[in-house]
Amino acid sequence: MMDQDAIAILGGTGDQGLGLALRFAKAGRRVIIGSRKEEKALAAVEEVRALVPDGNVEGYGNPEATAKARIVIISVPYEHTASTVKSLKEVLQPGQILVSMGVPLATSVGDGPMRMVGVWQGSCAELVKSLAPKGVEVISAFQNVAAHRLRELEHEVDCDVVVSGAKGPRAEIIELCKLVPGLRGLDGGPLANARLVEPLTALMIGMNVRYKLPEGLGIRFTGLPE
Amino acid sequence: MMDQDAIAILGGTGDQGLGLALRFAKAGRRVIIGSRKEEKALAAVEEVRALVPDGNVEGYGNPEATAKARIVIISVPYEHTASTVKSLKEVLQPGQILVSMGVPLATSVGDGPMRMVGVWQGSCAELVKSLAPKGVEVISAFQNVAAHRLRELEHEVDCDVVVSGAKGPRAEIIELCKLVPGLRGLDGGPLANARLVEPLTALMIGMNVRYKLPEGLGIRFTGLPE
Amino acid sequence: MMDQDAIAILGGTGDQGLGLALRFAKAGRRVIIGSRKEEKALAAVEEVRALVPDGNVEGYGNPEATAKARIVIISVPYEHTASTVKSLKEVLQPGQILVSMGVPLATSVGDGPMRMVGVWQGSCAELVKSLAPKGVEVISAFQNVAAHRLRELEHEVDCDVVVSGAKGPRAEIIELCKLVPGLRGLDGGPLANARLVEPLTALMIGMNVRYKLPEGLGIRFTGLPE
Amino acid sequence: MMDQDAIAILGGTGDQGLGLALRFAKAGRRVIIGSRKEEKALAAVEEVRALVPDGNVEGYGNPEATAKARIVIISVPYEHTASTVKSLKEVLQPGQILVSMGVPLATSVGDGPMRMVGVWQGSCAELVKSLAPKGVEVISAFQNVAAHRLRELEHEVDCDVVVSGAKGPRAEIIELCKLVPGLRGLDGGPLANARLVEPLTALMIGMNVRYKLPEGLGIRFTGLPE
Repeated sequence: MMDQDAIAILGGTGDQGLGLALRFAKAGRRVIIGSRKEEKALAAVEEVRALVPDGNVEGYGNPEATAKARIVIISVPYEHTASTVKSLKEVLQPGQILVSMGVPLATSVGDGPMRMVGVWQGSCAELVKSLAPKGVEVISAFQNVAAHRLRELEHEVDCDVVVSGAKGPRAEIIELCKLVPGLRGLDGGPLANARLVEPLTALMIGMNVRYKLPEGLGIRFTGLPE
Repeated sequence: MMDQDAIAILGGTGDQGLGLALRFAKAGRRVIIGSRKEEKALAAVEEVRALVPDGNVEGYGNPEATAKARIVIISVPYEHTASTVKSLKEVLQPGQILVSMGVPLATSVGDGPMRMVGVWQGSCAELVKSLAPKGVEVISAFQNVAAHRLRELEHEVDCDVVVSGAKGPRAEIIELCKLVPGLRGLDGGPLANARLVEPLTALMIGMNVRYKLPEGLGIRFTGLPE
Repeated sequence: MMDQDAIAILGGTGDQGLGLALRFAKAGRRVIIGSRKEEKALAAVEEVRALVPDGNVEGYGNPEATAKARIVIISVPYEHTASTVKSLKEVLQPGQILVSMGVPLATSVGDGPMRMVGVWQGSCAELVKSLAPKGVEVISAFQNVAAHRLRELEHEVDCDVVVSGAKGPRAEIIELCKLVPGLRGLDGGPLANARLVEPLTALMIGMNVRYKLPEGLGIRFTGLPE
Repeated sequence: MMDQDAIAILGGTGDQGLGLALRFAKAGRRVIIGSRKEEKALAAVEEVRALVPDGNVEGYGNPEATAKARIVIISVPYEHTASTVKSLKEVLQPGQILVSMGVPLATSVGDGPMRMVGVWQGSCAELVKSLAPKGVEVISAFQNVAAHRLRELEHEVDCDVVVSGAKGPRAEIIELCKLVPGLRGLDGGPLANARLVEPLTALMIGMNVRYKLPEGLGIRFTGLPE
């Protein structure tokens, strides 16, 4: 039942999740969109198919989506992160990789998107880790890649993302980034470093507003070996 | 229109807010219960009248309640704090005192009540301050007094609360505490000290669970002069 | 070599550490004062002997002190906590209990004592835990008991402290509190709750200043069963 | 006495401060190196002169250096930030610009450089602001530009820095960045955004270690208009 190569994207109906779905579908991977409501997932599937007609895409409720793919990307608003992970406890299996791309923006508590909330566990990714069943790997990635850039399929995204977590699955997600033209995954070390990565998104949201960039900034680290 | 002696309690329909409403009504003060929905405020008014038949109590929507009382206590879940204060911008007047009794419990983002979220502004009280119109004083108080103790009108609450904020209104709220038998307000200094006070509530919630105390703990500082 | 009943107090030359040393010596326990410099430890031993002439007290450098006692209390300024624990790595043995009584006051970075610094690991106690060898238990306790109250041997301290950490050693440290007249140890649950306890000390330091209480406040939780 | 065009660099004896001194001297600006000990400042002056023979460089104690330049860059370890700013209170004048380039690395409390401490005031820059006399502007900048890149005068630094603070002085410091080939200052909005910028340095320190890059990474935001 669980497809080793499929990629589930929970909250794949939101801007950033849908953008990743488009890119992975375009790269030829089987993509499974999850949502709290299956009909929303199915609508997102239609959106993907409109842009990637030969894409291998399906839609389900979050737990069903999770059961079908080894790699599960959580792309829900921060305030729904805990409840989403809790809802997966019955279906998550050891060996699965949960990818946290959430950012604890202060919108989660009614404040603005250029501010953050502090997380008891340290970061959104570590909150996910604290709730994931034993044996499930949690990786932090993809936070700062702009939705608009993902969705413009004819353009490269021109952005680095920092990937944190245990060594093996971290390397796997860094590899996964190569499916998206112009996206580079960099080694962010242990999961706790997500605390240092997540703030970048709030910073970039503010810069997008100040510089009037609806398409969104990207980021590149310079000085890395080829 | 604005009654210098009235006390509005926004979110006065919740356990702790209703407890304060009962105590202040019992002490003979005019109490104005606010809620996002006026009918919920009116239901809470009935609850107060059932226990304090001669109480001077009214119920309104939050903005109307705020317009009627100089002292306005905000007793809403943390995640509704920002939106509640924003909804009062048109009615708040210089000289009014907003009392923040909220605690940034992690329940606000779907995590547990014995954990907290970090607040960009430093504390729930400072979040309120950041959103309050100029000239409105914000005071932090009442966080750690248990709802159950407030509602048992025949018993003293046997609890200290720490009151922080600008000197004049701070002294006024410390004085206000005397209306509740067994409640003592202590000088917590400037508003930013709410950061040191708010965690106490999460700690006490956990102790109430561990010690199986549905009525809730209180706290007393020892060594103070009489 | 390691005495099951001895209590080592590292930084036992400071006000609060020396206070605990006095109380445990008075209660008849073997007390081992540790310091970075052995001569300072020996001077503190003299201070204890002056007040508790029949006390069983010795002084050593921190590692030697640690090697001699199963219970080791760390009573050093926050900024020396990491280096102190690191200096013990060779001597700490599984089964020992490290008690963290430090508070991350902002004095550690040149700011004031009524403010705090945020700790990457969550709290001073969790920083200790992160550095302690495997099998060593870390318990959080004693933060908010005033030095002056400890040192006035003829008076009860009249203060509760909250004890957090793993169940067995937590119960043991709660029991240890009974050696000090008027000191009550309360069950603070898991170690991470030290985050909710440590801020109390900064709050109380400020209240001691505002209320001009050189002897220091205490705290009592009310409503607990006898 | 105060030179409108001079740039003082307090802690200009450290790697990053000395790097900026070299670059500004090379660009022809008058540079004043400050240090807690004047002889260390003078030694740094010699270092600058060795690499920029015609540089206009002087060395003084921190307060004297501060008195001579309108723009004063604070480049001291985080734990010395508060004491350094306090030591300038007598000399700082309204209209001066204090630039905070510090990062609250956990080395300040004896922990590692890839971790951070939380700052009561929100960020190192806001700590500086809280201690600066009224009328002195505080700007956050330069945190994430690697010392090595600054010191290699024959190479462009190839790095963006994010500049936060009040509008006028923020624009001035963004302009100042143009003196350094390959350094671009970006609009980081209000000073509080330093909280989102400072973590980048800890992240990049870790990446430098993981990727074995003694010269240090840079960062570039992509998608900005020319």
